[in-house]
Amino acid sequence: MTGEPTAFAEDFLRDFAYLSTIGATPRGGVDREAATTADAMQKAWLGGWLASRGFAVQVDAIGNQFGLLELVPGAPYILTGSHLDSQPTAGRFDGAYGVAASCAAAHRVALQARAGELRPRYNIAVVNWFNEEGSRFAPSMMGSSVFSGKLSLEKAHAVTDAAGVTVKAALEGIAHLGSAEAPPLAGYAEIHIEQGKVLEASGHQIGIVTGTWGARKFRVTVRGEQAHTGSALMSDRRDALLGASLMVVAARELADEHAEAPLHTAVSQLDVYPNSPVVVASSVSSNLDLRSPSPETLSAAEDSLRARAAEIALRFGVEIDIERTHQWDRNEYQTSAVTIAEEVCDRLGYRHQHLQTVAGHDSTNLKDLVPTSMLFVPSRDGISHNELEYTTDEDMVAGLHTLAGVLAELVCDRDGGLSS
Amino acid sequence: MTGEPTAFAEDFLRDFAYLSTIGATPRGGVDREAATTADAMQKAWLGGWLASRGFAVQVDAIGNQFGLLELVPGAPYILTGSHLDSQPTAGRFDGAYGVAASCAAAHRVALQARAGELRPRYNIAVVNWFNEEGSRFAPSMMGSSVFSGKLSLEKAHAVTDAAGVTVKAALEGIAHLGSAEAPPLAGYAEIHIEQGKVLEASGHQIGIVTGTWGARKFRVTVRGEQAHTGSALMSDRRDALLGASLMVVAARELADEHAEAPLHTAVSQLDVYPNSPVVVASSVSSNLDLRSPSPETLSAAEDSLRARAAEIALRFGVEIDIERTHQWDRNEYQTSAVTIAEEVCDRLGYRHQHLQTVAGHDSTNLKDLVPTSMLFVPSRDGISHNELEYTTDEDMVAGLHTLAGVLAELVCDRDGGLSS
Repeated sequence: MTGEPTAFAEDFLRDFAYLSTIGATPRGGVDREAATTADAMQKAWLGGWLASRGFAVQVDAIGNQFGLLELVPGAPYILTGSHLDSQPTAGRFDGAYGVAASCAAAHRVALQARAGELRPRYNIAVVNWFNEEGSRFAPSMMGSSVFSGKLSLEKAHAVTDAAGVTVKAALEGIAHLGSAEAPPLAGYAEIHIEQGKVLEASGHQIGIVTGTWGARKFRVTVRGEQAHTGSALMSDRRDALLGASLMVVAARELADEHAEAPLHTAVSQLDVYPNSPVVVASSVSSNLDLRSPSPETLSAAEDSLRARAAEIALRFGVEIDIERTHQWDRNEYQTSAVTIAEEVCDRLGYRHQHLQTVAGHDSTNLKDLVPTSMLFVPSRDGISHNELEYTTDEDMVAGLHTLAGVLAELVCDRDGGLSS
Repeated sequence: MTGEPTAFAEDFLRDFAYLSTIGATPRGGVDREAATTADAMQKAWLGGWLASRGFAVQVDAIGNQFGLLELVPGAPYILTGSHLDSQPTAGRFDGAYGVAASCAAAHRVALQARAGELRPRYNIAVVNWFNEEGSRFAPSMMGSSVFSGKLSLEKAHAVTDAAGVTVKAALEGIAHLGSAEAPPLAGYAEIHIEQGKVLEASGHQIGIVTGTWGARKFRVTVRGEQAHTGSALMSDRRDALLGASLMVVAARELADEHAEAPLHTAVSQLDVYPNSPVVVASSVSSNLDLRSPSPETLSAAEDSLRARAAEIALRFGVEIDIERTHQWDRNEYQTSAVTIAEEVCDRLGYRHQHLQTVAGHDSTNLKDLVPTSMLFVPSRDGISHNELEYTTDEDMVAGLHTLAGVLAELVCDRDGGLSS
């Protein structure tokens, strides 16, 4: 046997606790936006962890960090991972739990293979995708989008943060602009906190993701005209911030109108120009997201949004431009990977259920390349993108064992489902 | 005679055109926020202009720049001026016209006195008030507020811009943290573009300001809770940006409800935290202004605003804090100064009328110290705080002659009204 399950879990919890100290905030969260110093520090931690366990560490041109371990010379890889970057003042579990669990589970599978307890057909690799969060540099899931060919490297490199720093310069700045080729893949597995309340409510320990909600993301730009906040007649004002505020309210009303679909809507980033206390704003840009499991609802909501924008523009003398910047359709994960996860949970005795993911994950890009298993563990009160995000040690460990079991199945591919 | 009126006007227009090149923007405006490099450049221009015409240039501890010219040794001064600082991407007339006109008019009065055409009782001085605009450093009218004792020097020095730079450090950075004592004053005169459409509509060339609207300015802070923009249930969200947007809409609705008072309202500066495309905002702070000639309307509007905030807070699970940060009451300019301006206009043959000012001006601080004459010239379409701000040369020159006439009267104080 390759060590006690108890020691496996304890080592994982200890490593995760250390990882959580990097970029830690006073309220128990982390602040580790992509390609910041804190992100560079955790990449160094990860590289060290992998290298010391025999993984070959390499970085590609969009800053994705891989650890490759060869079990079967020349064979493709089963890849597992998530992302270490975070939102500003975020929780310590989002992404980081998945990377730490992937490290421990991949290492365990490698030990089992070397001990002759498994007969692998594939190699195993761990990944820390670059900039999954999309807060400093939009869009989100940048590393896996470039990896999967959905976003060009050139376009991604040219994206700038609020200070005008490009992705390419930021990666160079932390010495993470690599040149590694993508490893050939046979499958992918990712585990993540649910960021919702379904598992908590049902009492299940593991969520097996069978599909993803569709999402449409927009850049909404409202243009008006600068004016004096005091002396300009109200009837003469073309107030871009008023127009933008009405769009925020309209987005919320859309969600209420389609509550049974359901439809989730949000405006969470909004920038005002000139943002002076004495000048009516001439320009406001914001992001606006629509998400739903129903493609019909998404389309209807976009139509309503555009109609509402036209009304606001007409009534308040502003121009409203709605540009679709990022989208993904509702679609399903491969049933072969879902079945494997169900079997592993049953064998380990974990209560499990099927789930849809509302949030985007790197796995939503990878599933379009290879059979992909996406697992969730419960999040207390569904709180996420918040320092108060929390998952119990017990739930993290159940997820770890499930992921290790799924990886062992994928690496061995007993029924040949992955290569068919 | 002290030169032709025509040469006087031409010299002024030439100097104003040069001043307009400092911090010029491509659309014909200027960008000269307080204590920036462009502001330092125009201070250097002004100091040079005044010094070469015999004015003693000095700067006080809040960066107000004075040019003093002694006509009657030991006598108090008639001060005239406005401000050179601008909003970001602003028009070239707001403030700068008043300073340039004050220079030319004060110089002309000095020449007339020295030529024996006037018998001055007072000396004459020009001022460029620091940070009238309040865009980089709030509050507005900072220099004249410190000068008039309404704001402490210590408090003003400690104000920071968005980058955390203090007023004191910014003034030191442009070598404009002076130590001059305030000159003793007998009167003040200021000329400014109207920033409204009353003169244009009436066809009058000169507005004589008889009073100022009251204003109440607030910092509105909305606090919610960070959450994932996709996965968080709509019913669980405590969205600070939604709360803030509803306050922007509420402010506009207040103006509509009190349109006959009238009531002008605005939210023009709004900052979102964490301002990420994927995180429901936990905190949004904004400014909110109410302005009206009616004290009753202002009070009623503040009450309504607070009631509306309480409703929004309750309905959407956010906290809304409304802090009054700056205010001034409706009040009147001295009738003696109004009468002088009327007489000057009649003598020069300019069509004139009484006006209230909605915008704050440095003169609203100075009128509480000494008899104060505030003059307006027309602004095309009332456009202001905008690069398209425009006043014709003819209107600027009419204002210049009026200001010179008013200054001559104030300096001579024939009926002794200023010293009574």
